[in-house]
Amino acid sequence: MDSSNKLSPAQFLQQQLQEVISLLEKQQLEKSLLERSPGANYELLETVLRKQQESRLHEKLAALHPADIAYILESLPLDQRKLAWNAIEASDHGQVLVEVSDAVRQTLISSMESEDLATVAENLDADEIAELADDLPKNAMLKILRSLNSEERQHVNAVLAYEDDQVGAFMDFGMITIREDLTLKAIADYIRKLGKLPGHTDKLFVVDQQDVVKGVLPLSRLLTHSPILFVADAMVTDFVQFQVDQDASEASRAFERYDLISAPVVDSKGRLQGRLCVDSILDFIREENDEDRLIQAGVSEEEDLFSSVWKSARNRWSWLLINVTTAFLSTRIIGLFEDTILQLVALASLMPIIAATGGNTGNQTSILIIRSLALGQITPLNVRRLIRKELSLALLNGTFIGLVVGSVAYFLYRDKALAGVMALAMFLNLLVAVVAGLAIPLLRHKFDKDPAAGATVMLTSITDAMGFFIFLGLASVFLL
Amino acid sequence: MDSSNKLSPAQFLQQQLQEVISLLEKQQLEKSLLERSPGANYELLETVLRKQQESRLHEKLAALHPADIAYILESLPLDQRKLAWNAIEASDHGQVLVEVSDAVRQTLISSMESEDLATVAENLDADEIAELADDLPKNAMLKILRSLNSEERQHVNAVLAYEDDQVGAFMDFGMITIREDLTLKAIADYIRKLGKLPGHTDKLFVVDQQDVVKGVLPLSRLLTHSPILFVADAMVTDFVQFQVDQDASEASRAFERYDLISAPVVDSKGRLQGRLCVDSILDFIREENDEDRLIQAGVSEEEDLFSSVWKSARNRWSWLLINVTTAFLSTRIIGLFEDTILQLVALASLMPIIAATGGNTGNQTSILIIRSLALGQITPLNVRRLIRKELSLALLNGTFIGLVVGSVAYFLYRDKALAGVMALAMFLNLLVAVVAGLAIPLLRHKFDKDPAAGATVMLTSITDAMGFFIFLGLASVFLL
Repeated sequence: MDSSNKLSPAQFLQQQLQEVISLLEKQQLEKSLLERSPGANYELLETVLRKQQESRLHEKLAALHPADIAYILESLPLDQRKLAWNAIEASDHGQVLVEVSDAVRQTLISSMESEDLATVAENLDADEIAELADDLPKNAMLKILRSLNSEERQHVNAVLAYEDDQVGAFMDFGMITIREDLTLKAIADYIRKLGKLPGHTDKLFVVDQQDVVKGVLPLSRLLTHSPILFVADAMVTDFVQFQVDQDASEASRAFERYDLISAPVVDSKGRLQGRLCVDSILDFIREENDEDRLIQAGVSEEEDLFSSVWKSARNRWSWLLINVTTAFLSTRIIGLFEDTILQLVALASLMPIIAATGGNTGNQTSILIIRSLALGQITPLNVRRLIRKELSLALLNGTFIGLVVGSVAYFLYRDKALAGVMALAMFLNLLVAVVAGLAIPLLRHKFDKDPAAGATVMLTSITDAMGFFIFLGLASVFLL
Repeated sequence: MDSSNKLSPAQFLQQQLQEVISLLEKQQLEKSLLERSPGANYELLETVLRKQQESRLHEKLAALHPADIAYILESLPLDQRKLAWNAIEASDHGQVLVEVSDAVRQTLISSMESEDLATVAENLDADEIAELADDLPKNAMLKILRSLNSEERQHVNAVLAYEDDQVGAFMDFGMITIREDLTLKAIADYIRKLGKLPGHTDKLFVVDQQDVVKGVLPLSRLLTHSPILFVADAMVTDFVQFQVDQDASEASRAFERYDLISAPVVDSKGRLQGRLCVDSILDFIREENDEDRLIQAGVSEEEDLFSSVWKSARNRWSWLLINVTTAFLSTRIIGLFEDTILQLVALASLMPIIAATGGNTGNQTSILIIRSLALGQITPLNVRRLIRKELSLALLNGTFIGLVVGSVAYFLYRDKALAGVMALAMFLNLLVAVVAGLAIPLLRHKFDKDPAAGATVMLTSITDAMGFFIFLGLASVFLL
């Protein structure tokens, strides 16, 4: 292949996806044609044709990287996804399951027989088995655990023992440990004898007899330093390591700051428990970002592009119902002022501006705060300054937007008092919005809840209800 | 140091930040005390004290990693940030500038003398200089370019030639190239002679005389394969490479899929131009996510936690003004129905529910679409199925939420016709919301605009205006 014509990875993937889809569509089309023209040799013909198509699809998929197969499965609707899944080599099933998103994984696992499930783990590492554990039926998982040797089983259980957001849940066991009293020559010989290094091995971990990590030996030092040096003299002692129970997003920020590829994971006594690699960190960051963004809008992360309509509906109802409930709060507040509105119906027209602008301002503030919390930039030391800044901003914004809105209201209704009430209500509601935009994420963070969860829904409820209350309240005091 | 007591990276950072802040506060306090008690030897005393504090701060900061200093600067308010910046070793200035966020970088650069600016690049690589280029004053940048040798200058210009979202803008030049007709032994000797490998070197690039990449030699193969093998026989020929002008987010997804650490970057003829490493990809993903989320709420990414109030205000006004303008559209729509409202004031109370629920539903849809677009999961082939799914979902959601809202309205006002109008309006507005939630990101994507930009603001305007129009319109037809 002439490398000048090499496709970019994305073009390659798109091409593969299209080829798979056209194979699938052919298969579906032929099947439906046959069903509509039943005859004597229908079954025979169908079997022959199906086998033919299946083997073409099978070949196509067998040549792809598991991550590429995962991408294709995620981009296929349910019926085609199942056809493609059945055309994948059984020995690849495990790797593909590890690569697909949670929601798609569930659709695939639910279509598998229990005996096939018990064998998916055959080509997987302990950390990969642990990743599937949540989604596999209990029976299959027990069978898989029984098929492992005791070290592997211990590794799987180690990973499973940690929460989703702890470093331990993301570690793997592909580390190579060495002793500090060996020479670099001896280490090089040892590696040559191993014959193969686990992926992402950029350094070897130097441990003592208690498995406490004393230092790390980067492969680059092994390659550039004199072979007669002892490990103790060539190793790096100022290295980054993580505790098993540490927060994974802390670890991800450390990977970014120090440009790490791999790092030792230790227990509270400093004993090596596993290894954290940049590929898990990349996955973690992607998932964390996704989750944050979806959860903020009140969508659970489990939804896949082609989840069944029914499943998606339930997924989104909980927040929508909360939203409807809080919206009725606004209704009741407006209800209090129905007499006021009857006396000055322009109020009904103008009140949504106050509410909507409040919602947007509050959103801007809360998103900045959520992001700064995620980056670990907000500390008890600077939070007061931050609050002061956002409040000053709200005063400035409120004055400016209040004047704009007041002027337009005057232009529309030629009523100075109404324009004044409008400007004042806008000013006050922007203050409310910024306070809510600060308070919701900061308080949720303080009580160890996800600061982003449903932030938009909660915030809008507050700015709506308060916006109506302030505007109609001021109107009933000053205008009637 | 007993490694069992080793702080986690985040704890370490927090501790450093607190120590720096307390040093800064002491310095500020002493200064203000001295200013309030002027005397004969005021200047002498002040100089002595200041020197003392400055040198303590200087020592503290000199011991930290540039990324840690960057974190501390980002967490400090403007006045303290400048004090800390002046206490940093001038030779570290460049590295720290590379690490800080864009917004903070501007505050630091604006406080520097032009002669200091010309020397910041002394310890930087070409790709790092290119990263600073946008923020440095033109004069300083010219001086820096003149101080480079011709190869470095060529590298800086190469990176600068690409757009922010192209692979070329993220490449570095720390690659080691080898020829395929050498033995592994010869390569090992060559590396030993180099004495040092650039960070993130997990593979060497095998090029021919035209610099076309023929394969890659992972360090792990160099360490495990027989030294008498030729590179041609040991190298991997099925490797991932990127085009200079390729989309960086495509590249980031390929890094995730194939668990890459580094990869060659080539021009359209396959000739090696540079190297793309996972650390740049991590930074890219973080920035892309941040930007997406902020831009969606109408905040530009340039804002730092402690940007001046004035700067932040201007940053947020453009979208707020768009929002106020569109909100006036809702006002005018309600204005059309003022007579209807006067006849049935309950409408004024109930109408915000229709609008708010529409906004939230549309948001859920648009966020799922924006995220699937970002992951490259939406293709011309599956977009129709996706639209069909979201519309079915809207029908289901609309029926359910419509019934709920209708029932509550009946409970509140004991008016069957009103409840019916409420349910129908909710049903229709949820359809509008989903159509808008699909259309805004998909259309923006189609016309090569950022699908997330201001999505929330636009969407809410549509669901508000249409919600009021549908509800009040139906009411004026059926209830009066």
